[in-house]
Amino acid sequence: MREITSVAVLTSGGDSPGMNAAIRGVVRTALSYGITVFGIHRGFTGLLQNDMELLSSASVSNIVQRGGTFLKSARCPEFHDPACRKQAAKILHTRNIEALLVIGGDGSLTGAHLLEEETGIPVIGLPGTIDNDIFGTEDTIGFDTAMNTALDAIDRIRDTADSHERHFLVEVMGRNSGFLATHVGIAAGAEMILVPEYSVNIAEIALQLATSRKAGTGSSGIIVVAEGNEPDLTSKIAHELQQHGLAPHISILGHIQRGGRPSGHDRVLASCLGAVAIEYLLAGYSDIMVGVSNGEVVDIPLDDLIRYRKGLDPELLKIALQLHK
Amino acid sequence: MREITSVAVLTSGGDSPGMNAAIRGVVRTALSYGITVFGIHRGFTGLLQNDMELLSSASVSNIVQRGGTFLKSARCPEFHDPACRKQAAKILHTRNIEALLVIGGDGSLTGAHLLEEETGIPVIGLPGTIDNDIFGTEDTIGFDTAMNTALDAIDRIRDTADSHERHFLVEVMGRNSGFLATHVGIAAGAEMILVPEYSVNIAEIALQLATSRKAGTGSSGIIVVAEGNEPDLTSKIAHELQQHGLAPHISILGHIQRGGRPSGHDRVLASCLGAVAIEYLLAGYSDIMVGVSNGEVVDIPLDDLIRYRKGLDPELLKIALQLHK
Amino acid sequence: MREITSVAVLTSGGDSPGMNAAIRGVVRTALSYGITVFGIHRGFTGLLQNDMELLSSASVSNIVQRGGTFLKSARCPEFHDPACRKQAAKILHTRNIEALLVIGGDGSLTGAHLLEEETGIPVIGLPGTIDNDIFGTEDTIGFDTAMNTALDAIDRIRDTADSHERHFLVEVMGRNSGFLATHVGIAAGAEMILVPEYSVNIAEIALQLATSRKAGTGSSGIIVVAEGNEPDLTSKIAHELQQHGLAPHISILGHIQRGGRPSGHDRVLASCLGAVAIEYLLAGYSDIMVGVSNGEVVDIPLDDLIRYRKGLDPELLKIALQLHK
Amino acid sequence: MREITSVAVLTSGGDSPGMNAAIRGVVRTALSYGITVFGIHRGFTGLLQNDMELLSSASVSNIVQRGGTFLKSARCPEFHDPACRKQAAKILHTRNIEALLVIGGDGSLTGAHLLEEETGIPVIGLPGTIDNDIFGTEDTIGFDTAMNTALDAIDRIRDTADSHERHFLVEVMGRNSGFLATHVGIAAGAEMILVPEYSVNIAEIALQLATSRKAGTGSSGIIVVAEGNEPDLTSKIAHELQQHGLAPHISILGHIQRGGRPSGHDRVLASCLGAVAIEYLLAGYSDIMVGVSNGEVVDIPLDDLIRYRKGLDPELLKIALQLHK
Repeated sequence: MREITSVAVLTSGGDSPGMNAAIRGVVRTALSYGITVFGIHRGFTGLLQNDMELLSSASVSNIVQRGGTFLKSARCPEFHDPACRKQAAKILHTRNIEALLVIGGDGSLTGAHLLEEETGIPVIGLPGTIDNDIFGTEDTIGFDTAMNTALDAIDRIRDTADSHERHFLVEVMGRNSGFLATHVGIAAGAEMILVPEYSVNIAEIALQLATSRKAGTGSSGIIVVAEGNEPDLTSKIAHELQQHGLAPHISILGHIQRGGRPSGHDRVLASCLGAVAIEYLLAGYSDIMVGVSNGEVVDIPLDDLIRYRKGLDPELLKIALQLHK
Repeated sequence: MREITSVAVLTSGGDSPGMNAAIRGVVRTALSYGITVFGIHRGFTGLLQNDMELLSSASVSNIVQRGGTFLKSARCPEFHDPACRKQAAKILHTRNIEALLVIGGDGSLTGAHLLEEETGIPVIGLPGTIDNDIFGTEDTIGFDTAMNTALDAIDRIRDTADSHERHFLVEVMGRNSGFLATHVGIAAGAEMILVPEYSVNIAEIALQLATSRKAGTGSSGIIVVAEGNEPDLTSKIAHELQQHGLAPHISILGHIQRGGRPSGHDRVLASCLGAVAIEYLLAGYSDIMVGVSNGEVVDIPLDDLIRYRKGLDPELLKIALQLHK
Repeated sequence: MREITSVAVLTSGGDSPGMNAAIRGVVRTALSYGITVFGIHRGFTGLLQNDMELLSSASVSNIVQRGGTFLKSARCPEFHDPACRKQAAKILHTRNIEALLVIGGDGSLTGAHLLEEETGIPVIGLPGTIDNDIFGTEDTIGFDTAMNTALDAIDRIRDTADSHERHFLVEVMGRNSGFLATHVGIAAGAEMILVPEYSVNIAEIALQLATSRKAGTGSSGIIVVAEGNEPDLTSKIAHELQQHGLAPHISILGHIQRGGRPSGHDRVLASCLGAVAIEYLLAGYSDIMVGVSNGEVVDIPLDDLIRYRKGLDPELLKIALQLHK
Repeated sequence: MREITSVAVLTSGGDSPGMNAAIRGVVRTALSYGITVFGIHRGFTGLLQNDMELLSSASVSNIVQRGGTFLKSARCPEFHDPACRKQAAKILHTRNIEALLVIGGDGSLTGAHLLEEETGIPVIGLPGTIDNDIFGTEDTIGFDTAMNTALDAIDRIRDTADSHERHFLVEVMGRNSGFLATHVGIAAGAEMILVPEYSVNIAEIALQLATSRKAGTGSSGIIVVAEGNEPDLTSKIAHELQQHGLAPHISILGHIQRGGRPSGHDRVLASCLGAVAIEYLLAGYSDIMVGVSNGEVVDIPLDDLIRYRKGLDPELLKIALQLHK
């Protein structure tokens, strides 16, 4: 078992619901092993400014249910510069911090990997993003909450769509991935789901919706569009539908998908990954992310995250298609 | 007491949460007096198409908690034509329907007024709009729910705004009125509220926000913007803020504010107004809207709605200003 | 205008959603007039222990949306003793605190009144209770949120009641008053509402429900029971219903009605009352509660709260009855 | 591939959120293969009464987001009698229904197994219960929603517990299993979790809570108690705590955990299991339940459900313990 007396934890990149629960998982588990924990403010930006505080058990009390991240987060372009990463390592050494836990998405975990590779500081990553687009893990902290938030919105929109017999094009987050859109679309009973993984024939879609409206089987409907599609796909489709006599509304859900009280699922996931991250660190692992595969907690080399891209499950899309006939 | 044996009810214009509860209030009260009730589909459009159904007590069972309107709604430009209104009266006469209850906003109630004025069909209006912009009533069916829905969204956005120390410009509905924006802004603890009733100096606002950010008293913040402001106000402010080195996000809440389970307040309001509408009709009133003034149910001549514009309470704005220093 | 340089604020008795918004309203308004504000911890208990902190604008930042009260609350039986109230005045004097703002229910405001009467310390009360049972005001801070929370629960229970064709007896809070039960019952579309203001004939109720079930018009249903009814009314009715072959479930909502993010309505109400309390104090008023009458902010002598009991609106109950046939 | 032209589907036992989405999954998938689908009302009770309707694609439109089950559910003690099961098979044969899909818990799936074993009617089970206590599957339809509902309630209770510095004993559902209590407890950041799988020493618990209160580290707290513990465990603990000078409140969440809009997770799970159930049936399987193991959809012999009992994950409990120090 590795000897560790002091670690630091930070949240980086876009915030996601459950990050607070993950910090709490890390802190309480580390403390139970007698390890000192520093909380770094505003991600790598705060690390470079040596901006951190000592965390006690009480520091993470009553936060498991709060959205956002109490350590605050930021994007840090400077961290792309190796000189800055060297500077970061120096700051950690000066404080006798022996390892770093990074909660964030693809980009943040890449930064973490480079930090270890270049400076030898052991790092453990935790997948914190609503997009669920990280290779090697089926699940990420915040995805489940974001899905539920998007569904709250779409369930409301469905009331208006039905009352007015209108179509709504609803754009959900997910960066370049259709994962969030697919889950949201199935759960919302969406009439159509458009994801960047598959090319879209706008003319065909418009014809299909116009035809089913004329046939009386689809007077209203929800079309879920992933933000990562070709630029302006949503407004292009809207325009095409207008050519067919439909008058669709557009709704871009945007940042509401990022915040809010985390769901139970995300709190349990974040708590467990936080605890396990410390266990893995003590067991000698590093340069890994803790994640979920086949329903079990696993470690994934951070290197893999950079090399591979997570694919969308084609079975899920098939089911989505089948259920909306 | 006026003798009435048969009435019809319709919902018109933009849907609002609580319309179902209002229909239920009308139907159950009418039935308790032995009056037959027809439910007209899709507002005045359905009326012109003679598209209606007989409603029983069971027809409105288990709908008090549902968003939207089960009778469906529509905007009906044809109804601006007096010939169409004459046609509508004819259809009602043919079915021996002696009075019409119209649940909707300003425009729909104007149509209702003209129908009575020109054809003698007694009409009673119920204020159904999330904008709360109808003259003569302090409250409208759907306003309270829309406020809560906007707050759900802003509370989530606040998590991200705080975590990232960013400003968010949040655009809420309200047509030409700042009523929804003011209430939402106070309840959200917004740092700034911009309403169409007062002119906005973009340069001054941007300077103020930039200054308080530099002073460290306002690193993040929510600015609530009413949709009814000058075109593109939101993006103009965003642009000006960027000039001052801030990087605000924009969130346009849009149609999610229209749907959803109605709040308790809106269900009670809608139930009472529905019941009272029938009582007033039986008492001989018509060409009126039932509404709320000084906390009491009142009748307002439909004529007044057309002639006067509801003003924003300056006291409320003063309080809003005072609380966000 | 009265000269005031320092005030204190406390929350007392059962907590209610919106208390934080009320504290914020008091603090920010007082600060805008250059008045120093102390926040007393745990109600009168903390006052007697001289347990308080100086509050800044930042102290009440980001709390408008939080349930509970960050100053904490307590019931304080010692405060029934005049000697203790004298001691409280002494503590306030020592700190040069010139007036006290008390947010709480009937009992807490009675204590506040006696404090002023006996010691001359000016007090202003704010009605903070989910029960809405305070004489002189139509509305109290927390009532609207509690109604919505109870409705969330009942809407869920309705799913099971319908799916299983069962009756549910749902007990809601409200102390000796049926106000909360009546509003919740109307908004929930409850089949029956039992309030302490009207005597209940258990045998008759059971017969009525059993009959409508046999007739096929009421296979399931929600009966809302106010907690303030005769002891064990809920289980007595359940027992009687079993005699008639029904198998009702009982659900006691309990303390979940007290907490949670306050509704928009309660946040606006609390913010306004907080601001107005300071304005009234500066205008020379004291020994009053600020409240709402006929939709307007008013002052009510604290003395009146003790002498009169708020009655239930019979019109509302009549409507409730009419709508559930 | 098995030839099937007609199937029936029913929901049985306690309702759970997502049952409607599961029915929709079954119906839409069956229809896509040209199979006729009957919906049986009120579980096995309705089957024995030959009470069913033909389902179209429109029958299951707009229900994916609704709680409860539109086919209604019931417990059916008669189905324990082999003669009744024979009668059920006869009714299915008369209607040329070739297979039965049963959505429900342990007891309902046992009934389904016996029906196939004794009469040869192919049956496929879907795990529908909030308790997540079915052997062979990690997940059941409704569990995730019930966890979130319980958390909504506990997050509210936490506001009051903190404001009043009180302990709350919160009893959650779960029948004889501690699965729901464990997940809820971790996600709520509960100070203690009591499950039937481990024996509880009341005196020790009370001492522990009283000690940490005196030490100032635990002035308030949430203790989650699974309903399946020894009778009256909750009130016994409350009594013991009172002996130590604490004044805990008790909250029994009860039936609110059963209803409500299903979570996104439960809607996706139910939709997938519904679709897969038909695929497995067509592939020749029967006398199985479709479930989830290691994150993948699997088939579990119904026989196994009767023979084995699902155990609680000790790792999860260890983490729960670690995080609440």
